[in-house]
Amino acid sequence: MAKSPLAPARFPDLPVIEGVRFASAAVGVRYSDRPDVMLAELAEGTTIAGVFTRSATRAAPVLDCEAKIGGAGTGRAAILVNSGNANAFTGAAGAVSVAALCEGVAETLNLDPARVFTASTGVIGEVLPHDRILASLSSLSGGLAPGGIEGAARAIMTTDTFAKGAMAEVEIGGQRVRIAGIAKGSGMVAPDMGTMLVYIFTDARIGRDDLQTLLRTLTDQTFNCITVDSDTSTSDTLLCAATGASGVDVTESTGFTKALHDVMLNLAQQVVRDGEGASKFVEVQVSGAATDGDARQIGLSIANSPLVKTAVAGEDPNWGRIVMAIGKSGARADRDRITIRLGDILVAEKGWVAGSYTEGAGAAYMQNDEIRIAVDLGLAGGMATVWTCDLTHGYISINADYRS
Amino acid sequence: MAKSPLAPARFPDLPVIEGVRFASAAVGVRYSDRPDVMLAELAEGTTIAGVFTRSATRAAPVLDCEAKIGGAGTGRAAILVNSGNANAFTGAAGAVSVAALCEGVAETLNLDPARVFTASTGVIGEVLPHDRILASLSSLSGGLAPGGIEGAARAIMTTDTFAKGAMAEVEIGGQRVRIAGIAKGSGMVAPDMGTMLVYIFTDARIGRDDLQTLLRTLTDQTFNCITVDSDTSTSDTLLCAATGASGVDVTESTGFTKALHDVMLNLAQQVVRDGEGASKFVEVQVSGAATDGDARQIGLSIANSPLVKTAVAGEDPNWGRIVMAIGKSGARADRDRITIRLGDILVAEKGWVAGSYTEGAGAAYMQNDEIRIAVDLGLAGGMATVWTCDLTHGYISINADYRS
Repeated sequence: MAKSPLAPARFPDLPVIEGVRFASAAVGVRYSDRPDVMLAELAEGTTIAGVFTRSATRAAPVLDCEAKIGGAGTGRAAILVNSGNANAFTGAAGAVSVAALCEGVAETLNLDPARVFTASTGVIGEVLPHDRILASLSSLSGGLAPGGIEGAARAIMTTDTFAKGAMAEVEIGGQRVRIAGIAKGSGMVAPDMGTMLVYIFTDARIGRDDLQTLLRTLTDQTFNCITVDSDTSTSDTLLCAATGASGVDVTESTGFTKALHDVMLNLAQQVVRDGEGASKFVEVQVSGAATDGDARQIGLSIANSPLVKTAVAGEDPNWGRIVMAIGKSGARADRDRITIRLGDILVAEKGWVAGSYTEGAGAAYMQNDEIRIAVDLGLAGGMATVWTCDLTHGYISINADYRS
Repeated sequence: MAKSPLAPARFPDLPVIEGVRFASAAVGVRYSDRPDVMLAELAEGTTIAGVFTRSATRAAPVLDCEAKIGGAGTGRAAILVNSGNANAFTGAAGAVSVAALCEGVAETLNLDPARVFTASTGVIGEVLPHDRILASLSSLSGGLAPGGIEGAARAIMTTDTFAKGAMAEVEIGGQRVRIAGIAKGSGMVAPDMGTMLVYIFTDARIGRDDLQTLLRTLTDQTFNCITVDSDTSTSDTLLCAATGASGVDVTESTGFTKALHDVMLNLAQQVVRDGEGASKFVEVQVSGAATDGDARQIGLSIANSPLVKTAVAGEDPNWGRIVMAIGKSGARADRDRITIRLGDILVAEKGWVAGSYTEGAGAAYMQNDEIRIAVDLGLAGGMATVWTCDLTHGYISINADYRS
């Protein structure tokens, strides 16, 4: 699979997070030619928060993580992730695999199985060959290193065409706090949680409940504002681990909140940039809605509309489809108060095409790789921004033949 | 555009409905090489009921029809429809065009403008050149004939690859009642009303309010159970006109209700068979849901899932994506009670793949042109059936370049 044309130039240089070590390996869960398992070890004192898919058919590892995430423990911990097999809809065998992996990691690293969090991503409905992973644990453990995060990012990829990482460093009271995150995801991405698999590490010190509250809030502004294809995974998992190794308490720090937000948004946008078949990155800004919720509903209606997404793919300034998507959203709208812009170009206002608009200007704008659709409802102060990609032949090619 | 592989062999022989005459013409609204306006004249005594899009950005003709449809009049009436231009999001000019057309038809046919119903379908956001249509009214009027319904069906097509018609004849108390209907629609089709443009004519006698109630009920079982791309049009209109010319009162007739249902379902399924780029016809049967509403929600979640639709296109029995779509629907589901069948093949039960299932059997079944996905939730008695088509390269090709 060719790398997405919207990919960043290269994987970023991520800072070492004190208290975290990574390892990855090619275990052959499904793929035979690439790393497919990653292990992260978290030092004593680490707090962990998580956000998960709300799917009614959640995978076994998600159910296990949900049950554990509320625990207030700060002992040593571990995260184990495999690609190639989602261990979803695998009946009783799913939980058996998860338990075996958690026990295996706990034994190998000498820690509490309740502090082991797993995830699996890939094909649904096939039993996870967890023995292959168990057999690799001792060599994975031996390979744990502070600098292994890029390898971890590569090991969790499925249909991704590039590994996704982001970082931030922030000074708080004269001391430096570091954040490094990785993510995977390019299809089955829709905002009903902390989309896809995302792992964020920081040396900040923060209590678990505070971290959980922060993570949930920031998820709504980042991962819950992206969509590739409106399909929601059974396995989406976002974990954030704070080792506290910097000694800096960030509980009340707006600087830390902003830095974590930026890392999350960066990763979320990278997922969209790697949307299956994507050739354009699309930002949909909605303002003037009756409520923020209405704004998000309209933004997602536009971002999920196959007709809008194919128009973007075709570089067609077909703003009539934007009107359609506003209309079908179910949110409040008054046709004659709607203003639509493509980038800075005023396209429509007062229920009609703008007098100054020319099809030529619209068509020229649509040739950009990054498209901004701005809609003002003219009703009140509700606002939201969502991100998506276009819908191309590439999406069909990838998904009409994924398992073969 | 090549005819859909799922199209019926030919346009059906539709019975003449006494009291209805049709004409069509090539007026050049947008297309220059084909009929693009149809006119239907309805005799004195005709009752008319209608169901319309719920889009918040409804087109001007829809707003006009909605305002008129509640009128209890039974004087002579007319329906005027053009393709090529939707007269939607055209500001004040939209209503001006509709008024001009209604006045023009009223004058030409010597009837009340309040009994003229118009619709427009095609590109959104461009002013309708209604003068071209007005100029053709006198020749259209001269061409009105009882047998012109097939020409009318052709004149309302946009991206349709075949004209859609359906009929029924039913004996009631020894007398014959006839129903003939036409429809257009192949994209921007999602169930939030009486989808796309549909015109049904009958010589039955029935009061307007009874007809309206019947039409609304049957719409929920037919046109509101199909989806091509989850996009809802600004212009969707369904009108049913009962001329009463048969002299047969059908107000309490279950035979008539069934016949009208069958015509509506036939037309709805033809729209799906002409779904943009469709290569497979898909029926999704949901049973055992907590409620009928939950069943419909799950059915539509499956039918609208791009990942399910591309799997069907790829003839891939990727039932994991069906599990995903059930999970994301928001309706009640218990993973371990779900049963999934492809046709008659038991695929999954009790939260896992069925012991008897083989990938080979699933793959062979997916090669059919008509696919049935049956899901039982195992919760209660809620049921629904929805119809859709697959998502192919053809959909992208059509919609990434519609206006050019």
